[in-house]
Amino acid sequence: MGKDKGDKGGFQLKVPKGTKDWEGKDMVIRDKIFSTITNVFKRHGAVTIDTPVFELKEILSGKYGEDSKLIYDLADQGGELCSLRYDLTVPFARWLAMNTSVQNIKRYHIAKVYRRDQPAMTKGRMREFYQCDFDIAGAYDPMIPDAEILRIACEIFDELGWKGKYTIKLNHRKILDGIFSVCGVPTDKLRTISSAVDKLDKSPWDEVKREMTEEKGLDPEIADKIGKYVVRKGGRNLLKDLQADATLSANESAKAGLDNIEILFNYLDTFGVLDRISFDMSLARGLDYYTGVIYEIVTEGSAPKTSEGQKVQAKSKKPKNEDEDRSNDPSVGVGSVAAGGRYDELVGMFSGKSNLPCVGISFGVERIFSITKARMEAEGNKAVRTNEVDVYVMAFGGKGFDGLLPQRMEVAKRLWDAGIKAEFNWKVKPKLPAQFKAAETNGVPFAIILGEEELKAGQCKLKEMGLPEGHPEKDGVPISMDKLEEQVAAKIEASRQAQLTSVDAVADKLDAANLDEAAAAAPKTS
Amino acid sequence: MGKDKGDKGGFQLKVPKGTKDWEGKDMVIRDKIFSTITNVFKRHGAVTIDTPVFELKEILSGKYGEDSKLIYDLADQGGELCSLRYDLTVPFARWLAMNTSVQNIKRYHIAKVYRRDQPAMTKGRMREFYQCDFDIAGAYDPMIPDAEILRIACEIFDELGWKGKYTIKLNHRKILDGIFSVCGVPTDKLRTISSAVDKLDKSPWDEVKREMTEEKGLDPEIADKIGKYVVRKGGRNLLKDLQADATLSANESAKAGLDNIEILFNYLDTFGVLDRISFDMSLARGLDYYTGVIYEIVTEGSAPKTSEGQKVQAKSKKPKNEDEDRSNDPSVGVGSVAAGGRYDELVGMFSGKSNLPCVGISFGVERIFSITKARMEAEGNKAVRTNEVDVYVMAFGGKGFDGLLPQRMEVAKRLWDAGIKAEFNWKVKPKLPAQFKAAETNGVPFAIILGEEELKAGQCKLKEMGLPEGHPEKDGVPISMDKLEEQVAAKIEASRQAQLTSVDAVADKLDAANLDEAAAAAPKTS
Repeated sequence: MGKDKGDKGGFQLKVPKGTKDWEGKDMVIRDKIFSTITNVFKRHGAVTIDTPVFELKEILSGKYGEDSKLIYDLADQGGELCSLRYDLTVPFARWLAMNTSVQNIKRYHIAKVYRRDQPAMTKGRMREFYQCDFDIAGAYDPMIPDAEILRIACEIFDELGWKGKYTIKLNHRKILDGIFSVCGVPTDKLRTISSAVDKLDKSPWDEVKREMTEEKGLDPEIADKIGKYVVRKGGRNLLKDLQADATLSANESAKAGLDNIEILFNYLDTFGVLDRISFDMSLARGLDYYTGVIYEIVTEGSAPKTSEGQKVQAKSKKPKNEDEDRSNDPSVGVGSVAAGGRYDELVGMFSGKSNLPCVGISFGVERIFSITKARMEAEGNKAVRTNEVDVYVMAFGGKGFDGLLPQRMEVAKRLWDAGIKAEFNWKVKPKLPAQFKAAETNGVPFAIILGEEELKAGQCKLKEMGLPEGHPEKDGVPISMDKLEEQVAAKIEASRQAQLTSVDAVADKLDAANLDEAAAAAPKTS
Repeated sequence: MGKDKGDKGGFQLKVPKGTKDWEGKDMVIRDKIFSTITNVFKRHGAVTIDTPVFELKEILSGKYGEDSKLIYDLADQGGELCSLRYDLTVPFARWLAMNTSVQNIKRYHIAKVYRRDQPAMTKGRMREFYQCDFDIAGAYDPMIPDAEILRIACEIFDELGWKGKYTIKLNHRKILDGIFSVCGVPTDKLRTISSAVDKLDKSPWDEVKREMTEEKGLDPEIADKIGKYVVRKGGRNLLKDLQADATLSANESAKAGLDNIEILFNYLDTFGVLDRISFDMSLARGLDYYTGVIYEIVTEGSAPKTSEGQKVQAKSKKPKNEDEDRSNDPSVGVGSVAAGGRYDELVGMFSGKSNLPCVGISFGVERIFSITKARMEAEGNKAVRTNEVDVYVMAFGGKGFDGLLPQRMEVAKRLWDAGIKAEFNWKVKPKLPAQFKAAETNGVPFAIILGEEELKAGQCKLKEMGLPEGHPEKDGVPISMDKLEEQVAAKIEASRQAQLTSVDAVADKLDAANLDEAAAAAPKTS
């Protein structure tokens, strides 16, 4: 698409730095992702809340620490001082605090947030980008909502076609605290050591140990003890090993965390998603407010591989295609596509009422978009159309042809009345090649072709676009004008079914590998 | 819902003035309206573009005249100066100007816009509100896209259930210009006289005439000539009368406008929506940039009735329910639910390239929401649920009942796998009344009830909620666990069909009155 970014009429024709127009195929892919995600949320009974794009400045104050400098303020034009929302969590907490009668809710929110990222520090980062949050507030029996959130995440990635291509890294804040405690980390070093551990997905242990000891002054012996725990990952076996570890089990915090994980594993097994889990002792998550289970979902190709340390990596960070991978949602962390955890004490910050326990997940929709788009392009990107029209209504004729405009309009009207998506050329006398070109450019699957002779006989032609040369229906099949709507609808439906069938066939092949798993997950209740 | 607007933790717990949280049933109704509208746009091959919520300040400068003072600026925190978008038209024009290769497009955009309305002047107006714009850019044969836009508007209001309850007021800028010219209005008074005429929907002619003569200094004889034209409204008959008016037809501008309307009427007839049109000589529309056909859609109850003048009316404007009718989208005008017209010279303001002809419509979604909600409440509002769950999975048992949590999870998992929306209580041992209450509160239509005895027999109960006492299936029907998914899906589908059928029956009754019209609109092509 030709872009004119020149200086026109005395001003620069561009969008503000760090923002973009969503258009064309990108818009279609993005909408598809949003609707996939939304459908899963609704399947689990979630509701959505739409908060204002700006909040009172004081609502956001003191919530983001050092990052507060990235908040966009509105100009003081008289009246209240306001700022653009920085994330969707604080507005949700503000809403919960205001609506005191709400004691439990499952809410999702997909919307833009705003951060004045400094371009010098973070090249290519967006200043306006989408976040997609799902949170469950309310007091429930342990680990049940936590398990449902992970099940929801699996449904979403499965339905995005990522089955077998993602892993849920899982840990528990209380287990980590317990490990640090039994290894002898001084209380004042807990957070900084925790954040060093979190780098193990990108750096080898030796490097993390050096950071702990040389930079952060931890006793190397303590570091070595930590190292034996945090490099471990696995499933139920790891859980059993840790439960059998007398030192760890004697620690109250660790024991509570391990008990939680055992319950969670049982629930995830029942929900048929335990095989996606990697119980990963190195996952620590940056945010301070987590109080229980924490998780991060990674997919192949989403984590930049590097053996360099975090600082170097941050500087050298350069996606292959800078235009495409400008996603920068820090709430999901580098390399992950979703992340979250339990935070039982956050709402209290905004509210006089007692704390409302919460567990949530944030999907990195901008990154999910980039990966989805790259995969679609690798697969040829055939399926993406910019509009959804099913039928292009055309006309042709010989000498003295008048364009049959009223007839084309009439046919389009009948199709619209029947709920069928249809277009026609907006010229009185369009040329046939121009009509075909318009249909082909937009990938419209069917054409209705009107001709004077056919109309006199009460007929028109229904043509499936893109049939190969020599196909018996290449030039279309005659249909009766009396039964126009039902015949077109039947043809569209048949084509849709055929596509579904071929998708199912592919899915079946993929699933064949998982038959054992399916058998294991078969109903236990009957 | 309890609202806590008190001062908590040293700050006011509220949203900024003129903004609101969308939540609960309002959110559901709004989403339903948006999806109805979006479906119609897509049926006509439209695409959407999502532009940033703020634009460079200079892009918005000089576009809104006196109203520019209502633009929200971002604070100058270094870098570019930006402002929140004031409408969706200027960003679209900016996009067209940047994307020079786009020579035609049908685009819709539903998004929030921002206006710092002064509360003293405009009590109750929102400062953040939704707009919904649909525009067609590109050079086409006359009146074809114009006709399709009006057809689209009719599909939208019909599908919102307003069939027979709305009117499209239609006029043409060139006809108005011609009338003013043949009546002898001086060129420098054209706009101000036009805006006086536009008040005829709220004020009687005498009042408008007084404004023209006493306030605006127009010769009373000229005013009387104008009066003979602008009080007229009708359909094809009025068009014929005006075409037969020798004075008017001799005016080039009026003749061009009348020719346009004649073509448009033919197209609208073909599209089956001519009966919704009121060709109304008093419709002038405020905005200066219209160059051709102009229209405004009004519905019963949407136009405040008053015999007072515009100024008085603006001051005394007080909706019945101030909380509900805070919609203030000025692009649709007081009392209308959609409005627009042809503007062939606007894009040139933003672009060095030659003008791109455009025709568009803006739907007053906030007002459509208020009216829809009021109508639903008047009808008992039964259909509105805050979530979409189809099945609540419950369990009950006698002494020693363990809650059957794994079994409830397993059933929920199987339903989710089958794409069925399902919930269960998140307690290990929930009480049966609590489970029923949750299902009833959310209006969940079906319950699966698990019991230990039934499960041993490979069965559970499927219960339709809300059946009357004495109904044979009041306590549910036993179904086999082996065929759980298909039986539940079949029941949901049957219930959906039954609802559709009853809706259709009502629609059929309404349509019976329109049978003659339907006959007249029968296919002419066969």
